[in-house]
Amino acid sequence: MSNSQDARGIALKSLAEPARAELVGDGAVMIDRVATLDGATAGAIAFLANPRYRHQLQSTRASAVIIEPRFAADTALPKLVTSNPYAAYARVAALFHPPHPVAAGIHPTAVVATSARVAASATIGPFVVIGERATIGERTRIHAGCAIGEDCSLGDDIVLHPRVVLYARTVVGARTLIHSGAVLGADGFGMADEGGKWLKVPQLGRVVVGADVEIGANTTIDRGAIDDTVIEDDVKLDNQIQIGHNCRIGAHTAIAGCVGVAGSVRIGRNCQIGGAAMITGHLDIADGTVVSAASGVFDTIHERGVYTGAFPSLPHREWQHVASVIRRLRSFADRIRALERDRRGQGE
Amino acid sequence: MSNSQDARGIALKSLAEPARAELVGDGAVMIDRVATLDGATAGAIAFLANPRYRHQLQSTRASAVIIEPRFAADTALPKLVTSNPYAAYARVAALFHPPHPVAAGIHPTAVVATSARVAASATIGPFVVIGERATIGERTRIHAGCAIGEDCSLGDDIVLHPRVVLYARTVVGARTLIHSGAVLGADGFGMADEGGKWLKVPQLGRVVVGADVEIGANTTIDRGAIDDTVIEDDVKLDNQIQIGHNCRIGAHTAIAGCVGVAGSVRIGRNCQIGGAAMITGHLDIADGTVVSAASGVFDTIHERGVYTGAFPSLPHREWQHVASVIRRLRSFADRIRALERDRRGQGE
Amino acid sequence: MSNSQDARGIALKSLAEPARAELVGDGAVMIDRVATLDGATAGAIAFLANPRYRHQLQSTRASAVIIEPRFAADTALPKLVTSNPYAAYARVAALFHPPHPVAAGIHPTAVVATSARVAASATIGPFVVIGERATIGERTRIHAGCAIGEDCSLGDDIVLHPRVVLYARTVVGARTLIHSGAVLGADGFGMADEGGKWLKVPQLGRVVVGADVEIGANTTIDRGAIDDTVIEDDVKLDNQIQIGHNCRIGAHTAIAGCVGVAGSVRIGRNCQIGGAAMITGHLDIADGTVVSAASGVFDTIHERGVYTGAFPSLPHREWQHVASVIRRLRSFADRIRALERDRRGQGE
Repeated sequence: MSNSQDARGIALKSLAEPARAELVGDGAVMIDRVATLDGATAGAIAFLANPRYRHQLQSTRASAVIIEPRFAADTALPKLVTSNPYAAYARVAALFHPPHPVAAGIHPTAVVATSARVAASATIGPFVVIGERATIGERTRIHAGCAIGEDCSLGDDIVLHPRVVLYARTVVGARTLIHSGAVLGADGFGMADEGGKWLKVPQLGRVVVGADVEIGANTTIDRGAIDDTVIEDDVKLDNQIQIGHNCRIGAHTAIAGCVGVAGSVRIGRNCQIGGAAMITGHLDIADGTVVSAASGVFDTIHERGVYTGAFPSLPHREWQHVASVIRRLRSFADRIRALERDRRGQGE
Repeated sequence: MSNSQDARGIALKSLAEPARAELVGDGAVMIDRVATLDGATAGAIAFLANPRYRHQLQSTRASAVIIEPRFAADTALPKLVTSNPYAAYARVAALFHPPHPVAAGIHPTAVVATSARVAASATIGPFVVIGERATIGERTRIHAGCAIGEDCSLGDDIVLHPRVVLYARTVVGARTLIHSGAVLGADGFGMADEGGKWLKVPQLGRVVVGADVEIGANTTIDRGAIDDTVIEDDVKLDNQIQIGHNCRIGAHTAIAGCVGVAGSVRIGRNCQIGGAAMITGHLDIADGTVVSAASGVFDTIHERGVYTGAFPSLPHREWQHVASVIRRLRSFADRIRALERDRRGQGE
Repeated sequence: MSNSQDARGIALKSLAEPARAELVGDGAVMIDRVATLDGATAGAIAFLANPRYRHQLQSTRASAVIIEPRFAADTALPKLVTSNPYAAYARVAALFHPPHPVAAGIHPTAVVATSARVAASATIGPFVVIGERATIGERTRIHAGCAIGEDCSLGDDIVLHPRVVLYARTVVGARTLIHSGAVLGADGFGMADEGGKWLKVPQLGRVVVGADVEIGANTTIDRGAIDDTVIEDDVKLDNQIQIGHNCRIGAHTAIAGCVGVAGSVRIGRNCQIGGAAMITGHLDIADGTVVSAASGVFDTIHERGVYTGAFPSLPHREWQHVASVIRRLRSFADRIRALERDRRGQGE
């Protein structure tokens, strides 16, 4: 990029290759930032990924756009044409916003156990605590106030934002990104009922997180009871998600915010779980399954597909009628059956 | 207050003006604390804001009460009469519990970047980290262990309780109060699907919070993808709320705990969102809308009103019947139609 | 244990008494760890608590099992027989995993107010902050980065994992365990509406937590408005739970993850609340009540029992039909009634 970017930006033609898109139109136009179609001004490149914004192509003041072939004729602007404009946008945006360079080294306030091994290229922020025998890989950055328990193992190029907690023995794979407030490895919710009192069941497993995972702010993942809780490669977890002990989340699965996953659930690969969905314990979800937002899953899903279980809100008075009828539904079944029986009787 | 408060408290008559209420009865009675009607003893002032507690007026041992005109005749106690007893109570309670004075200054353990600007009247607690070019306004208090990212801008008279995280470039307006564990500015949940793998979409916007906002413990607000996520003035957010990227929450709106708001939602002014409600992405909610607790909002709400979508729990066996009937509802529609057709046939 | 455990483990016969179980079979077999039936190899003791895993008794490679009398005949392995195998397993697992010994003392980086009283046997980790007049009991361990407010009172043998926040005046009973990110004592969500603007209502009560309580990661419990929020002895709270101000949770009650409890709720003793359930404010729940996962409770529950209110997800298309019919339910009632009237008319 150094040879093509200057104070005026980057020529559009130089963006085509990193964007994995085809240049159509004037490749000499200079681009210095990304923007939305609606918010763009001269110098910006915008993108159309969601057809609902297609009408904005007419009014945008962007200097260029990233667009699918099927919509390319809608605009005379210089453009990058690709079947996946959202991904192309992501690549271009990353070009204009390279990660901040961060100096390697351990902040003098950090408390690092003598038996811990921290790569020389790693960055350890202020007030970080690293326990005995923990290992921190190359170029991994651990920001202010994180607590890394004993025997944790962190790979290369990981980023932990401020105030992440990893309990003892947690494993995190390369390039994984964990946001502030996330807690990995707290005890699973296991206790035995002994005559009305609770006896704690030791939680002996670990949390094992793969490579290229992203974990959102204040998300919690419990350690396994005996075996491990496993988050496979390229799983994306949004904020405020709770993953119970002994779950396994398959590779490339994405889970939106506020989802609760109870213990011993196996979610397949390439699933998408909508926000605030709730999945009860000891069940499996097939590869490629989509669960809609706010839906409850109470049984194993054997076949991929889209599953939904949430009612849209209605004006309150209308809802009150619905709710009152719901309670009487069983009598409806009986009454319809009686009417049908009656009709058949008349027919004889 | 110095001239009217002594060891025995404050004379009731001196409370009328700060409470914005009218004194009825003996204004010389001394008040030294606030209490509930049920828990009050001599010296306390109690209040009636919720009519369900009206019967407690007969038994309360409070020395005075704050009450609406319509209930004033229910009690012979000295009283402060006002159309808004809850607000009057709040003012009186604040009189008896002024904020602790806190010494200004930066705790010696805090790590403050050399280019950060901290007002001399601000208080920075132990183990706080403040990034480059951040600005902290007059009398703002940042408690232990908060992490303030680069280029953050905090106004005057803000309070951050321990362990709040503000990612880089977050803006917070005057008098805003943020509780422990809140995370503002983590990446929005944006990624492009590239043949079954996820490509991270850079999250370039900010979180911009207005004045007089309150943000609850462990609440998370994501930074915008391109444009900003905006929380307008006087918004009140309870605990464990998730606000997705590019949302805008209108002024004076209150959101109760555990609510999830997906990305690009615009909530109007003076709305009230009940606890554990769930709002899916890319929709608008009209000014003044009330969403009931535990209700899902899946479409734009154009007109103000009360919206509800949650079924009350029933005894489990009863619920099982309901749930089994729900699945057969479509057949009900068909069967009722058949019966009606049949009846019409007979009528001919 | 010192006289019976060596490098090869512990003889099975020595486990019977601590497990409170009866030895059946070869008591000399050496056990060195616990395992699941499925994951066990030689040297491990496994257990059968959930009948769904009964078939694994045939294939397990465990050296011994913990089992109920009714299933004891299913396996020829040496065994510990008990009516509560899960509790027996918990005791055996604890034997093999005693708590790490932790050196007493205050880490040199901790900031402890001069008026705070910390027991000599307590352990205070790095970057902990302890406010004025707080008291910390014998053998209590406060891990890295916790913030303990002024006037907090912590009993003996408590464990606070890293980054717990206790606001001022919080009380915690003996042997209570609090996981990372939990916040106790933040302000309840109280504000008075004054002509469309919010006036903050001071939150003056405390959070009072009993003995033997467990509080999960990132769970939040708000301080009371006037009176206290109370968590009684032996209550178990999973992760990401929100407890509103002035709630009282009865002894031995267990609440699973992601549950929201609004203000002024009284939950009885020995209740079980399923994950992601939602309980609205100002209601009571009877002792011994079970609320199913993802269910909403909107009214007082007077009688113990199991209460449910969540629909299982369906394939999306099927659900769309259900949802569309739901809206027309009221017309069903009318139409069925019309048909019945009609039939009666014919009968005359």
